[in-house]
Amino acid sequence: MSDQIQSLAQRARSSSFVLMNASTGVKNHFLFALAERLENEKDAILRENQRDVETALLSGMKSAFIDRLLLHEKRIEEMSLGLRRVAGLPDPVGEVLEGVRRPNGLLINKVRVPLGVLAIIFEARPNVTVDSIGLAVKSGNTVLLRGSSSTIHSNRFLVALARTALKESGLPEDAVSLVESTSHEDVKTLLSLREYIDVAIPRGGAHLIQNVVEHSLIPVIETGVGNCHVYVDDPADLVMAERIILNAKTQRPSVCNAAETLLVHQAVAPVFLPLVITALREKGVEIRGCDMVKRYVPDVIPATEEDWVTEYLDLILAVKVVPDLAEAIRHINQYGTRHSEAIVTRDYTHAQEFLARIDAAVVYVNASTRFTDGEQFGMGAEIGISTQKLHARGPMGLRELTTTKFVVYGSGQVRE
Amino acid sequence: MSDQIQSLAQRARSSSFVLMNASTGVKNHFLFALAERLENEKDAILRENQRDVETALLSGMKSAFIDRLLLHEKRIEEMSLGLRRVAGLPDPVGEVLEGVRRPNGLLINKVRVPLGVLAIIFEARPNVTVDSIGLAVKSGNTVLLRGSSSTIHSNRFLVALARTALKESGLPEDAVSLVESTSHEDVKTLLSLREYIDVAIPRGGAHLIQNVVEHSLIPVIETGVGNCHVYVDDPADLVMAERIILNAKTQRPSVCNAAETLLVHQAVAPVFLPLVITALREKGVEIRGCDMVKRYVPDVIPATEEDWVTEYLDLILAVKVVPDLAEAIRHINQYGTRHSEAIVTRDYTHAQEFLARIDAAVVYVNASTRFTDGEQFGMGAEIGISTQKLHARGPMGLRELTTTKFVVYGSGQVRE
Repeated sequence: MSDQIQSLAQRARSSSFVLMNASTGVKNHFLFALAERLENEKDAILRENQRDVETALLSGMKSAFIDRLLLHEKRIEEMSLGLRRVAGLPDPVGEVLEGVRRPNGLLINKVRVPLGVLAIIFEARPNVTVDSIGLAVKSGNTVLLRGSSSTIHSNRFLVALARTALKESGLPEDAVSLVESTSHEDVKTLLSLREYIDVAIPRGGAHLIQNVVEHSLIPVIETGVGNCHVYVDDPADLVMAERIILNAKTQRPSVCNAAETLLVHQAVAPVFLPLVITALREKGVEIRGCDMVKRYVPDVIPATEEDWVTEYLDLILAVKVVPDLAEAIRHINQYGTRHSEAIVTRDYTHAQEFLARIDAAVVYVNASTRFTDGEQFGMGAEIGISTQKLHARGPMGLRELTTTKFVVYGSGQVRE
Repeated sequence: MSDQIQSLAQRARSSSFVLMNASTGVKNHFLFALAERLENEKDAILRENQRDVETALLSGMKSAFIDRLLLHEKRIEEMSLGLRRVAGLPDPVGEVLEGVRRPNGLLINKVRVPLGVLAIIFEARPNVTVDSIGLAVKSGNTVLLRGSSSTIHSNRFLVALARTALKESGLPEDAVSLVESTSHEDVKTLLSLREYIDVAIPRGGAHLIQNVVEHSLIPVIETGVGNCHVYVDDPADLVMAERIILNAKTQRPSVCNAAETLLVHQAVAPVFLPLVITALREKGVEIRGCDMVKRYVPDVIPATEEDWVTEYLDLILAVKVVPDLAEAIRHINQYGTRHSEAIVTRDYTHAQEFLARIDAAVVYVNASTRFTDGEQFGMGAEIGISTQKLHARGPMGLRELTTTKFVVYGSGQVRE
């Protein structure tokens, strides 16, 4: 099996030399061809997906899991629409980022080029399969997909459609491959193939990401763990503050940019806490508060150290009263995962200080953390939200799937 | 010891929140203060360095090693001058790279910010110590330095000077620390401290880099292994070709941007090979050639597969005759380390094809590979040459020691 993975990776590398220089037209042709195939083969896709769903049901998987796994007509249409939308986005490859003529006459251009070969490791969501294929090919990269065993039939079929669409578009089939084995040893093998794979991108929960980071010899782009905070300062528009924390916590609690902890300045706590906790509870949110919170709302569950570090991804919110802005910043820099952090304030200096001192991918004044998203940031599509500092930070679109190359035009220059 | 490393890293992290927002003036004050101390303490530096040199001599180290280790007045002056030069470079921190107003009124700016905490792992070159400190502090980063045991006295003294200069400039001393232990276990510990360290940068030979890549849980910026090629096309200006390969091979053979293999188109081989090999031999270069090369210059040492992959860093050159441009590109993409690759040609289409199809940090037409260098590219200073694709590729200056942060100014926006 390990030989088979190596051979897949080797072929992905060879194909990448073609994809790297494929024209925008050819890549878009592929995206449209795949979109069409998804629509035409809807019934067959649903049939293969049903096999995965039945296995999951038989092994007693939870309904949230089944929900992520399940495809239906609308989801297939969305997948197809997503591909057409990516076709409409500008091709990042070839952009000249900067250029200079040196005193010796050398012309040096810094040009955007594809990364090469991506390994995307993800969980039981067949829509991620199609989405990843679309973004990889549009940015000129070839891709090795390793989904979970629970989606094997769906993924096999979707990848086969993609390979047919590649062929149809005059591109090498091996630009998209599925790593079928899901044994941990084989994933380790995959993550050791530095010679053939340029970047590993885990798309999934904290456990998956941790696992990839620990085992990969290939550079990793980490995505997605978000222990996000909203800090309500003094002075703040408390009506706005309530609207923002309600949105950040409850609009979609299962995603990484949802808030997990509310910090409240002690001066506004007596007025604000009873109001906001009532409103949050009406939306079904369980509150875990520090001692000071209990003083104003006695029936909250006491928060422990554990609560400050937890990404609940659920209708639970940790709440803490802080003496001042400095302590809010200290708390966030200590416990946050450097994803998205917000302050609600009326004070100009406090706003600037929060923006400057918080170490995170995205920092907000007077807005919900829920905006950290490629679509919302105007990138058109997103492969994930990077919480690391190297390469890309925050929402990653097509550009973040590229690297650069210095192209130097000389006329015989040698170094003195 | 492991506790001590953890504590150093923790203090580097705390200090990084100060360095991140230090003004350009304060950072430059530090650079000038350290430059001055180096000059004033010249004798003491030389004395401490002498202790390292004596130990190295006693343990029978080679003269090349001693040369890298040894400081003398001129080297100290160069270190000091280097710091003053870095002070003169523009501060990369705070630059707004792009910005947009979204339809919902959110103002989103992408701002350059320091990486945070760097771990720099390097070999027996005390000038790297000072150089790394200067670049780290100017870019707003704190730094943990781990040099080799053979430079311990020099490094201890230089780091102490830096810490005094930090204090003098109102910056936290812990912004610069030396990891004194050189046991492999302790290096592993250092490379596992993801919580406190943002990036690991190895500066040294292939073995050091490989070791860091294999053991690090922290993201790594790889620098420096260069198996670089010069390809002489048909048609080419053969006088220019000879000048370029002589420069690329012999001007400074011990560095990563020196050429290691010469590829020659079969049509120019009969004329070019005898001439160029004679010229190279006059400069003391040993030639290892393929069978076709032996046909034109019978007394060359036969090249083996091993020669195509070797970075000699010495006056040795592998030479191969190729049937056409396509084979030259294939050879380079197979054996190269994606550092710097050059074509010498008169053909416009060949030049464009080489630039597009070679997968490397820097690709050249009609110029020596020796130009791959921060100074030569106009960056003013260089922390190394990245041969990886994530984050930075090619020469890395101050900008490459930064990341970005999205700063979002709202007025109460929540997500629908």
